[in-house]
Amino acid sequence: MEGHEVAVEPFVLSEIDGRGVVRLTLNRPRQFNALSEEMLEALQRELDAIAANPQARVVVLAGAGKAFCAGHDLKQMQAHPDQAYYEDLFARCTQMMLTIQRLPQPVIARVHGIATAAGCQLVAMCDLAVASTEARFAVSGITVGLFCSTPSVALSRNIGRKAAFEMLVTGEFIDAVTAQRLGLVNRVAAPADLDAEVQRLVDAILAKPAESIAIGKSLFYRQLELPMEEAYRLAGQTMACNMMEPCAQEGVSAFVEKRPPAWANVER
Amino acid sequence: MEGHEVAVEPFVLSEIDGRGVVRLTLNRPRQFNALSEEMLEALQRELDAIAANPQARVVVLAGAGKAFCAGHDLKQMQAHPDQAYYEDLFARCTQMMLTIQRLPQPVIARVHGIATAAGCQLVAMCDLAVASTEARFAVSGITVGLFCSTPSVALSRNIGRKAAFEMLVTGEFIDAVTAQRLGLVNRVAAPADLDAEVQRLVDAILAKPAESIAIGKSLFYRQLELPMEEAYRLAGQTMACNMMEPCAQEGVSAFVEKRPPAWANVER
Amino acid sequence: MEGHEVAVEPFVLSEIDGRGVVRLTLNRPRQFNALSEEMLEALQRELDAIAANPQARVVVLAGAGKAFCAGHDLKQMQAHPDQAYYEDLFARCTQMMLTIQRLPQPVIARVHGIATAAGCQLVAMCDLAVASTEARFAVSGITVGLFCSTPSVALSRNIGRKAAFEMLVTGEFIDAVTAQRLGLVNRVAAPADLDAEVQRLVDAILAKPAESIAIGKSLFYRQLELPMEEAYRLAGQTMACNMMEPCAQEGVSAFVEKRPPAWANVER
Repeated sequence: MEGHEVAVEPFVLSEIDGRGVVRLTLNRPRQFNALSEEMLEALQRELDAIAANPQARVVVLAGAGKAFCAGHDLKQMQAHPDQAYYEDLFARCTQMMLTIQRLPQPVIARVHGIATAAGCQLVAMCDLAVASTEARFAVSGITVGLFCSTPSVALSRNIGRKAAFEMLVTGEFIDAVTAQRLGLVNRVAAPADLDAEVQRLVDAILAKPAESIAIGKSLFYRQLELPMEEAYRLAGQTMACNMMEPCAQEGVSAFVEKRPPAWANVER
Repeated sequence: MEGHEVAVEPFVLSEIDGRGVVRLTLNRPRQFNALSEEMLEALQRELDAIAANPQARVVVLAGAGKAFCAGHDLKQMQAHPDQAYYEDLFARCTQMMLTIQRLPQPVIARVHGIATAAGCQLVAMCDLAVASTEARFAVSGITVGLFCSTPSVALSRNIGRKAAFEMLVTGEFIDAVTAQRLGLVNRVAAPADLDAEVQRLVDAILAKPAESIAIGKSLFYRQLELPMEEAYRLAGQTMACNMMEPCAQEGVSAFVEKRPPAWANVER
Repeated sequence: MEGHEVAVEPFVLSEIDGRGVVRLTLNRPRQFNALSEEMLEALQRELDAIAANPQARVVVLAGAGKAFCAGHDLKQMQAHPDQAYYEDLFARCTQMMLTIQRLPQPVIARVHGIATAAGCQLVAMCDLAVASTEARFAVSGITVGLFCSTPSVALSRNIGRKAAFEMLVTGEFIDAVTAQRLGLVNRVAAPADLDAEVQRLVDAILAKPAESIAIGKSLFYRQLELPMEEAYRLAGQTMACNMMEPCAQEGVSAFVEKRPPAWANVER
């Protein structure tokens, strides 16, 4: 039956518009878009396709139905009481999460409802996040006796350790404004304004050259893991390469000549 | 006389209630609970006992008298103008601080008054901190010519580097609300509500299985020091082990079956 | 002509007063104090001189004219479309930035106007920053197709990664209050109060022994890059050495004896 359902309704809806905006929608609303094996596989497949698609400029990740994403599929996990199964499951989930960060395109989480456990991790792993005032965030595994260890990796790299530990050990929800104050989301909007707020980020990204963004995104996450001097060495080399790109030569020339840059594939 | 006083009044008061809540109280109010050699030794002893006590579920660390903790005992330090003495003293202090982080139980700092120098470090090293609106925080060693180097290790892992450096170089106090905004404390309450606010965290922790919290706390601090991919690898293995624990199997089953988990030693 | 201009107006104005306060002023107001090769060289020279000057107690870094600093000199960069040139330029810029952090004296950025790209990086690399309510901050290289890779190293060590990535990928400005909330600046003041606010930090620093500040500043940045246990080991040794300094022995004695410390070269 699950197999039948897949045929009818894909786990992840993917649309790309003429501007290169990819909308990925987690599409198991009745399961609160749980990250089942099938959902992880579908997400991985879509992300890999985006990585290889030169038309794709930016990704908006959303959820269908009431929730953004409720984390792992506990029913499916319960059916496999096997440590090797769990290790493999978490490894695949990690792989999918790291793929987001390794994409050449920026990924924006559009969070309209609850984002819990690995769903909260998904928000943390996106490059940017916009939340509705109705969104709420928790790493609630501990309420079923399962500390959110893998989500903690992403969460503790977005927000301070005291706040992260409190969320992890209490399992309690925080609202969108708190999530913004702590650093988990960039912007908060009324539900009716959520798409417009996402759009503002999308538009800002589409007005920049894709090559420079790809170079910069990759550098950004690599340098974060290095000591400062090594980070600077890598960043300096990266920026010198970036300067040799035609888009940067044109951008800098246009700036000096006080004219708009003549870039192909970049919106004005 | 000091020896006599020890016999009468322990340096650290330790109580455990029937729920497994350990209350550790720094008990040298006239010395603002300074971390003398004797205080460090008493704290180390109590923490080691808690680590070995399966009845202990959560620790609340408080101070008797007006102050939470005023840091090292400068009078005692002045009496030993000897570099080897100081190195040994700071090594023992560090050992005690790291023991807090290595305890299987969460530790909550209950900060009702000033927390300065190593007293501020103590707050930073606890997993959680609740402050009264009358609490104030400083790393004030620089005012006597002694930069708070060891406190800076903990402080700069709780709050941003600009704010940390300002506190370290000026020695100035910040209030509780500022400490919360920066990330040094989780919650702020009026003095009359301080214990109730601490209690809310205690209750949230007592409603979760101790094994899962212990697994998660240990993972949390280890993963913070690793590059992201290694952190994920460790977290995935840890979470798979956690899933094999009876408490997680029961918690997940209960969730799937829409019933409360039948956990021993966990409050509802 | 540029050479002639240098002779008339130095790229960086440097003044030291009787209290040991060094005021460095970026002095190419018509170029928004861009970090040209000449400006970088002048800054490096001044910073090296400060490092070797025992009279210098604290540095205030400011900009002449409307802007604080607009980053690299794009006109000069455009004139050298050569990867080796860029690598060398960024390496020298990095060297200058790291020199700020390695100075024995604290450096305070006084930001009265825009700080963009490497100008924003300059703020991030200073130990402390005070901004006017009219200051604005951006890492705007991406708007000319040049992702601010080297600025990202400093920025992402001051503020959270979601906020940093947003600034880097959109190139948008944030105001001073936002910069303070995120952790990029310590204090914000009305334009008329900017110097008074800077002065409060300067006064706080001048009231502390220079040796202890130098020891602490160096330790602070080194420990940030180490795992916690190693950081503590280094900090404990550093603090023991600090305690053996005459200024700390005197400071601690004065504290114990409830009298002001008899320090030479320290303001009361």
